Amino acid sequence: MSQPYEAPLALLRWAIEQAASSTGLDESAPHAEALGDIADGVLAGAARLAREVLSPLNAVGDAEPAHLGAEGVHASPGFRGAYERFCADGWPAIAAPLEYGGQGLPLLLGAATTEMWGAANLSFAMCPESAVGAIEALSRHASPALRAQYLPSLVSGTRTASMCLTEPHAGSDLSTLRTLAEPDAEGWRLRGRKLYISWGDHDLTSDIVHLVLARTPNAPAGTRGISLFLVPKLLTRSGAAPERNDIRAVSLEHKMGIRASPTCAMVLGEAGGARGWLVGELHQGMHCMFSMMNHMRLGVGLHSTGLAERARQLAVGYAHERRQGRDRSGEQRPIIEHADVRRMLLGITTLTHAARTLAYTAAATLDMARDEVSERSASAARRAALLTPLVKAWCSDVAVEAASIAVQVHGGTGYIDDCEVSQIYRDARIGPIFEGTNYIQAQDLLQRKILRDEASELGALLGEIERAAAGLPPAAQRGGALREPLLRECAQLRACIRGLLVSGATDTELTGVIAYPLLQWLGVLAGGWQWALTARRAAQRTPGDRLAQALLGGADFYATHVLPRAAAHAASVAAGVLPEASALL
Amino acid sequence: MSQPYEAPLALLRWAIEQAASSTGLDESAPHAEALGDIADGVLAGAARLAREVLSPLNAVGDAEPAHLGAEGVHASPGFRGAYERFCADGWPAIAAPLEYGGQGLPLLLGAATTEMWGAANLSFAMCPESAVGAIEALSRHASPALRAQYLPSLVSGTRTASMCLTEPHAGSDLSTLRTLAEPDAEGWRLRGRKLYISWGDHDLTSDIVHLVLARTPNAPAGTRGISLFLVPKLLTRSGAAPERNDIRAVSLEHKMGIRASPTCAMVLGEAGGARGWLVGELHQGMHCMFSMMNHMRLGVGLHSTGLAERARQLAVGYAHERRQGRDRSGEQRPIIEHADVRRMLLGITTLTHAARTLAYTAAATLDMARDEVSERSASAARRAALLTPLVKAWCSDVAVEAASIAVQVHGGTGYIDDCEVSQIYRDARIGPIFEGTNYIQAQDLLQRKILRDEASELGALLGEIERAAAGLPPAAQRGGALREPLLRECAQLRACIRGLLVSGATDTELTGVIAYPLLQWLGVLAGGWQWALTARRAAQRTPGDRLAQALLGGADFYATHVLPRAAAHAASVAAGVLPEASALL
Repeated sequence: MSQPYEAPLALLRWAIEQAASSTGLDESAPHAEALGDIADGVLAGAARLAREVLSPLNAVGDAEPAHLGAEGVHASPGFRGAYERFCADGWPAIAAPLEYGGQGLPLLLGAATTEMWGAANLSFAMCPESAVGAIEALSRHASPALRAQYLPSLVSGTRTASMCLTEPHAGSDLSTLRTLAEPDAEGWRLRGRKLYISWGDHDLTSDIVHLVLARTPNAPAGTRGISLFLVPKLLTRSGAAPERNDIRAVSLEHKMGIRASPTCAMVLGEAGGARGWLVGELHQGMHCMFSMMNHMRLGVGLHSTGLAERARQLAVGYAHERRQGRDRSGEQRPIIEHADVRRMLLGITTLTHAARTLAYTAAATLDMARDEVSERSASAARRAALLTPLVKAWCSDVAVEAASIAVQVHGGTGYIDDCEVSQIYRDARIGPIFEGTNYIQAQDLLQRKILRDEASELGALLGEIERAAAGLPPAAQRGGALREPLLRECAQLRACIRGLLVSGATDTELTGVIAYPLLQWLGVLAGGWQWALTARRAAQRTPGDRLAQALLGGADFYATHVLPRAAAHAASVAAGVLPEASALL
Repeated sequence: MSQPYEAPLALLRWAIEQAASSTGLDESAPHAEALGDIADGVLAGAARLAREVLSPLNAVGDAEPAHLGAEGVHASPGFRGAYERFCADGWPAIAAPLEYGGQGLPLLLGAATTEMWGAANLSFAMCPESAVGAIEALSRHASPALRAQYLPSLVSGTRTASMCLTEPHAGSDLSTLRTLAEPDAEGWRLRGRKLYISWGDHDLTSDIVHLVLARTPNAPAGTRGISLFLVPKLLTRSGAAPERNDIRAVSLEHKMGIRASPTCAMVLGEAGGARGWLVGELHQGMHCMFSMMNHMRLGVGLHSTGLAERARQLAVGYAHERRQGRDRSGEQRPIIEHADVRRMLLGITTLTHAARTLAYTAAATLDMARDEVSERSASAARRAALLTPLVKAWCSDVAVEAASIAVQVHGGTGYIDDCEVSQIYRDARIGPIFEGTNYIQAQDLLQRKILRDEASELGALLGEIERAAAGLPPAAQRGGALREPLLRECAQLRACIRGLLVSGATDTELTGVIAYPLLQWLGVLAGGWQWALTARRAAQRTPGDRLAQALLGGADFYATHVLPRAAAHAASVAAGVLPEASALL
């Protein structure tokens, strides 16, 4: 059996400081204060809960998935107790607004805890993460009455939330969804079917807040006719006992991974209609849902970082223990002494650190964007919008790769169900799919975040990357290997985007085919940016600082083993539209 | 539910012809004859069995794995009947020697059937594949008496075989294995434990031939003291009923994939000793086992190609059916019309074709090596030795990647157990691990197949690749995109190897760290070679040949979307020894 997850506090702390410093959050009171001593207490507390409570349940949930009984969904053994502890310790509230009972701490600090939950037990982590997204959407868009009724309980954790978007015929493309919301004397009644609803039902809490996208009578076709409704599992009238609303889970998916997270098919309105309340304006459902979805996308990036970290530590732990091969004296030696094993471990480690620092940077940027007194708020919002799809897609791809390498380090052991790394490999594969496939992210990145403003925000980001590269030690020195290739790659990307803008990039065939390679290219580059920032910080530490010294080595490894992939992605982008080969498809 | 596996006969036929032509096998009677009309009948028959019998059992075996009862291992439902049909149709014998009842057909033809078995049902396919490897080892190394006793039944399929190498403390490094074989009046008695024995026990046949590596008393330490023994499950004395030998499966692994393939922990000698017969010379066990292992490695490459093909056809099928998004008239359109989906499908398709043609080329080269009257026999043997680790490792990596892309094409559906592509994703992950991890292959490639002959065989291979590139259409023409980059990559690899040879490459730290990136580099290049051969053949067909036209497009796609990875692998190799970063590990 593997050791429970142990949060890498020194690396988390490093990533928090790097993100706070590079975004300016460390100069923005009151956030700066929260990032000091409070942060240490928060991180230590989260690490303890992750290690002692969530991590030991991870394999349990995989072996005994949530199941559907007559009364609804039963979570995996131990999950209810873990959730009670999670709420009693105040974790749902950590970055929630003070006015609803939250602790109002920076999202950056919340990001580190989110990573830990994902690392320890992704299935579990998905449940409170939806609530955080719902808090975001409701506090922005819901009426005062709805906010007062639901936000305090979402913040305390006595209610959880689900996001009901997908329908059998409407996945990536929501324009065709059919769930209908009709007005009656008391408000709205909803009827329809929803698919792939994570934690759509469970017994961790008695009530659940469903945020449901639906179409209203005579609404415009497509996404412009969609509205957002709050549909609670329970209806409470003053003085009366709560009643079940007309929404229920009718089946659960049996999945390759995240098996303890109940993925529900939901039916609304079997008995006349589920009662719902409009959130935000009529027909503004997509806009309102995007608040939640953007948050969830950052969440996927953070959870994926956690999975990569967990894969890393399982592999590192195994490599220290497992003995194979001999040294010159004939002694068997731990496989970590084999160069190829260290190559694999450094691969996971440098990818994970890049994913983490990038995702934390997005969180810190969101903190800056929310700080309305800051002059940098608007530009931070633009930056956060640019980084969000990148974080979701690139970090989830990194987790898949890291998990695969970690399996390889384990050899045959990694293929056995008892070995947690085999679960991580299965769990990680959902990341590139849900909350908008990675191609959806790539399209968002290219169309809305790059082309729409004529790459002005991307240009600003590339400028920062170039400044970070220029701040590195000389190429010949330790930690300096990133300097030249990073500058070169930035120049190449600038040239490529310039070409796209000149051509107008109106050919959907072209933008469709280059979007994902372009995201991968920018992801590898952004990882290099974060490693450059890390190397610059590390170079300022004393030579006796072992972690800083090792991070300089990590930056050099990234430069020679990861960054060169950028050219391959660039070549795919440069190739443009696909050759005709339909007889092969 | 997905459609059963359908062998892509036109592409298989193409790969066979390409491999026969590029190796000269098409000019070598009697093989050439067998590759004509006989081949069509063989391929059609194998395709039928794969589609009608093996493929429908694939999901069954995943849901109801083999299990261990009091009497031994019970295969998954339906597997016994399928195996009987498999034998009745003569498939175990297809490429086996005529003298033991085999059909003596070219390995190249056997390769195509092996791919089909792997594609339809990998768990099943692993069982007869071990027998083919055992036939190879026994016919080369066993005594005439052992050959007479066991080979006809292995060829007919009434016995199967297992390969017993790994022990709890001896995985990749067999030098420390402890299973002991002691001589007594009647022969040898073996005692020990073996781990990860595929199809080590089952009820498809009554007897099983175990090929067991063991140490004899006073043998030299390390691998030079290891001998190979044949240990049957049943002992037959003339006139008496068969008795159980003292070897049995004591537990089965619960695995992420290939769940219908029983992975056994075996114990020998609980009741005094398992009776065994020496195969080959004493202390020559590793040498004898290598005959089997090399065969199994080609088998992994072929099975992996089959998995990639199955992933491809599931993804293509889904992409034609699933509708998302709209065209300009507002109609929902199948996702295959989305450029990004076609990009993903061409990625799987071009990788699969490269893997297939490369693996078939290795099989055809082995046919040439066996043809003792041919002058090219010795050089073919050297070429086959060079290609074997490459085929095992690169094709299995390709299968993992292809399966992952195929999951992504499916979106959420691909993550559900009901969807066969999720099984392919799990099944494929064993390929890089078993039969020698891909790093073991990389080490074999670099140390034994490249450095030992001072890259003379590699140089010959690169020369062939360069000739294939030079035979391509001009770069501006369809099918010509590979020409320049392939020539450039060959030159780069030549320069790199020259540098290694000059330096002596005696630093095990260096060779350890570059071996795997070097294998990846050569793999991508070899895939380009095969696509160049394909494009050359395709360019000679009439413009109305739709498959040939599409293959020209495939070659161009490979040039711009896959071959550019070579530079990233080259950069890892060029980086040499790892930076010190042990505080991160």
